[in-house]
Amino acid sequence: MTPKDIDLANRLAEAAGEAIRPFFRAAFTLEDKADATPVTEADKAAETAIRAILEKERPEDGIVGEEYGAVRQGAARQWILDPIDGTTSFIAGRPIFGTLIALLQDGWPVLGIIDQPIARERWVGAIGAATTFNGEPVRTRPCRALAQASLATTSPHAFDSHEGEHFLHLAGKVAPRRIIYGGDCYNYGLVASGHIDIVVEANLALHDFAALAPIIEGAGGQMADWNGEPLSGDTDGRVIALGDPARLDDVLEALHADHGHRH
Amino acid sequence: MTPKDIDLANRLAEAAGEAIRPFFRAAFTLEDKADATPVTEADKAAETAIRAILEKERPEDGIVGEEYGAVRQGAARQWILDPIDGTTSFIAGRPIFGTLIALLQDGWPVLGIIDQPIARERWVGAIGAATTFNGEPVRTRPCRALAQASLATTSPHAFDSHEGEHFLHLAGKVAPRRIIYGGDCYNYGLVASGHIDIVVEANLALHDFAALAPIIEGAGGQMADWNGEPLSGDTDGRVIALGDPARLDDVLEALHADHGHRH
Repeated sequence: MTPKDIDLANRLAEAAGEAIRPFFRAAFTLEDKADATPVTEADKAAETAIRAILEKERPEDGIVGEEYGAVRQGAARQWILDPIDGTTSFIAGRPIFGTLIALLQDGWPVLGIIDQPIARERWVGAIGAATTFNGEPVRTRPCRALAQASLATTSPHAFDSHEGEHFLHLAGKVAPRRIIYGGDCYNYGLVASGHIDIVVEANLALHDFAALAPIIEGAGGQMADWNGEPLSGDTDGRVIALGDPARLDDVLEALHADHGHRH
Repeated sequence: MTPKDIDLANRLAEAAGEAIRPFFRAAFTLEDKADATPVTEADKAAETAIRAILEKERPEDGIVGEEYGAVRQGAARQWILDPIDGTTSFIAGRPIFGTLIALLQDGWPVLGIIDQPIARERWVGAIGAATTFNGEPVRTRPCRALAQASLATTSPHAFDSHEGEHFLHLAGKVAPRRIIYGGDCYNYGLVASGHIDIVVEANLALHDFAALAPIIEGAGGQMADWNGEPLSGDTDGRVIALGDPARLDDVLEALHADHGHRH
């Protein structure tokens, strides 16, 4: 990974944003179609735009995209694309979805972007560099105790009933009225910027979280699975993001409070 | 209510936005204070700015504000203010909170504003006029069946366990993956603009919903309580907003499905 990769990733995000913007809040003009259509069209247009640039400028790199699958899966460098993370927010006209772009080197995320194309907000994280928000370095904030922490998750429906119970144990320990719902990748950007303390989710795929780790960790935070292990291609979809890594044990303990062991 | 009242209400929203913007995402620079401080400061600054204008230009009107209480409660015209609806989003740095301003004439909301001061988005609804979004008329969208509807609510924690069960009955009937969490007043604006079909909430106060009815109804939608009755000062905090009024019976039936009667 070189500074040229960061430049390239920024250009990929620009191209995706150009492709997405015309479809935002366009749903209700398509009177006779289900509102799934604009988001699918926007998703495809954005991924097509990104792939065209990658095929031209990095013809040896692999690409894994949510819409158009994988090419060159044996390559050491892999671009992981999720053109619209937060389709429910996109369809509802809420500017808190994002384009996720990650670069994996030998399976390890070395570069990540969260781009919000409507508000024109972008977080960029890269190994060995400070995470930036619209070009300015950002830091997570300290969090001295769970009782002062804010906690975000996109939807309770993303949890199975077992996971939901774990989440509610944790929710019972954080600051009252600081539990934030909705938001998808945008919440992780806000952890990096020091506005949210903890995100806990389940059911995430590699394309959902690969971009997030460099952003969170380059801002001073930490990501882990629900057992406290680092994220990898084998992660079971259960993800924790922390602004203050010192709270990891507290979060794990609260998540697994009534079971006496981690599993 | 006259066009001058609408002009005035717009100026109140501008003044509130000016007061709020400096505090947005400022939380993490106040290292040793609880993050409740910036939102309280922003709330107070915005309400002070609005009250200063009203006291000067409408010295006979009543004012009910979340921060500074009520004056002239006997007046026929009452301004109802919620400077920051969605404090949890505000504190988390998410631009989906809003300033709510309503004018009640003899207890009846005749004018309502939802203003999002960061994205600079404003919905204005007034009796006898089409609802506008940033000055352009908007309409709700038709919704032919619950199975195609999107459903929004701010937080499951706003429901007691009984209300939560009702909500989940309804959630089981709407379009899968179209249940939207978080958003407070912003979701109601998106109903008016035709991007969300249904909002169902509990625990709302008069200052939370007074501004919403003129906006939703001036765009072709409908608001009601969980028994299908029009909202009033006596509403128990349980609120429904519909883009398509034809779905009211379906929503009531789904909410109360396992009880056989409305209560």
